[in-house]
Amino acid sequence: MIQLSLIGIGTGNPDHVTLAAVRALNEADLILLPRKGEAKSDLVDLRRLLCRNLLDDPSRTRVVEFDLPRRDARADYLGAVDDWHGAIARVWAGLMETHLPQGGRVGMLIWGDPSLYDSSLRIAGRLRSCMKSCMKSTAGRAVEVDLKVEIVPGITSLQVLTAEHRIPLNALAEPVLITTGRRLRERGWPGDAASVAVMLDSGGAFEALPPEGLYIWWGAYLGMDKQSLLDGWLADVAPSILERRSALREQHGWIMDAYLLARAPLLPSQSNSPIDTAGE
Amino acid sequence: MIQLSLIGIGTGNPDHVTLAAVRALNEADLILLPRKGEAKSDLVDLRRLLCRNLLDDPSRTRVVEFDLPRRDARADYLGAVDDWHGAIARVWAGLMETHLPQGGRVGMLIWGDPSLYDSSLRIAGRLRSCMKSCMKSTAGRAVEVDLKVEIVPGITSLQVLTAEHRIPLNALAEPVLITTGRRLRERGWPGDAASVAVMLDSGGAFEALPPEGLYIWWGAYLGMDKQSLLDGWLADVAPSILERRSALREQHGWIMDAYLLARAPLLPSQSNSPIDTAGE
Repeated sequence: MIQLSLIGIGTGNPDHVTLAAVRALNEADLILLPRKGEAKSDLVDLRRLLCRNLLDDPSRTRVVEFDLPRRDARADYLGAVDDWHGAIARVWAGLMETHLPQGGRVGMLIWGDPSLYDSSLRIAGRLRSCMKSCMKSTAGRAVEVDLKVEIVPGITSLQVLTAEHRIPLNALAEPVLITTGRRLRERGWPGDAASVAVMLDSGGAFEALPPEGLYIWWGAYLGMDKQSLLDGWLADVAPSILERRSALREQHGWIMDAYLLARAPLLPSQSNSPIDTAGE
Repeated sequence: MIQLSLIGIGTGNPDHVTLAAVRALNEADLILLPRKGEAKSDLVDLRRLLCRNLLDDPSRTRVVEFDLPRRDARADYLGAVDDWHGAIARVWAGLMETHLPQGGRVGMLIWGDPSLYDSSLRIAGRLRSCMKSCMKSTAGRAVEVDLKVEIVPGITSLQVLTAEHRIPLNALAEPVLITTGRRLRERGWPGDAASVAVMLDSGGAFEALPPEGLYIWWGAYLGMDKQSLLDGWLADVAPSILERRSALREQHGWIMDAYLLARAPLLPSQSNSPIDTAGE
């Protein structure tokens, strides 16, 4: 039996890990750490650091690193993602077969929360059939696969974004839309939301919006030592955000950012600025 | 100087507390625990339990309970909420003046995350002016107020909902709308989202939607021992959810629930059901 725990670990601030995540890490027999190539090696380093700091008995829990397959850059985005998830599931299945032939508990450290713009649940959903074929080829016959999946929630980058800017995600009693940079570019400002949170933006999707009356709270490397924040009326700060984003990306070799946009002030005492609340 | 920490504590599962929350609790000189009347005394009990379990030195940190002012039930919802926030800010200011006349660190335990459908940031935004008038009436003259607000993110009920059902919040590369029961009733299915998460529903707002083709994942008392989950096609399970909701509310004297609705399967291996992934 394989018990797979997808463990949300937050966004790089080791203090954002929950007690449940610490426990799940320590209960694992095997932890799989994906490597995403040189550019994002900071992210692997942070995961290694978490394992080092949080594992009570490193001799009990085996930490195995592996190279994440690359996603096809082809135009058919959803098809490319689908193939990619299949390739990752086959790698997971092979590693579990190699390192836990008798079964056991596997932990995966998931950036943020496994529920939000993360592939691990979708990959886990394909794991059973990969494990079947992997075990069949080893055993030379069909084998029953007993797989359980457990999710440990973690703090997302949006929660760190709002905490660091000291703002709510939603305007009072209003809906909030969480969307991607790609979708914001395609569809513009959504009809139903007073505030819009944007993730997975390859850069400056907010430029697709008429900036009048929009306020933006932006953050990069949220939760990490190199965290960077900016906020202001979109018409005023959009150029500074693009400039800083590009300089940081150059400096660190990679960037992940997120931002919240709103039409109305999110807090009563602010003229849409977090400064008043912070008392600074 | 008052340093106010709004500490997200998750939804009742003590293991969902982060290391940062544990530290913020222990650094507080004063913790304010709101009582919300008999019906929701479970929630005060859970906060008391967290303080008991997580405070290293109970003699150092003073825990003070107070009765939360009640919100006017008048028709002008936003106006009533605004007055209510003002009343709560005055109570906070009075308690800080009484228990920390020389200043210090105040911690408030916030259910879920302070960023999502929570009043504490809005109340904190009004605190400065309340503290000014409170301190002026004590000192007999105008007094400068030095207030800093810090936010510690916490796991929300939506994250527990998706973790327990083992589903993502968003369909692949699609936006997700987080909204209230009130707004869902008023506006129906929003145009821009493939999935919709609903909070603060006073009961069965999903009945306002044509159920065809909608799947629902529902949960009550998420993260607590009495947690209850249901999922299925909305047309099939809506009556069971309403029935169970009403029975649980009767049994416990209060209820808080949340749910996710989606048009398309959220995971590839599921015919929109979490059972396959769970491997049960």
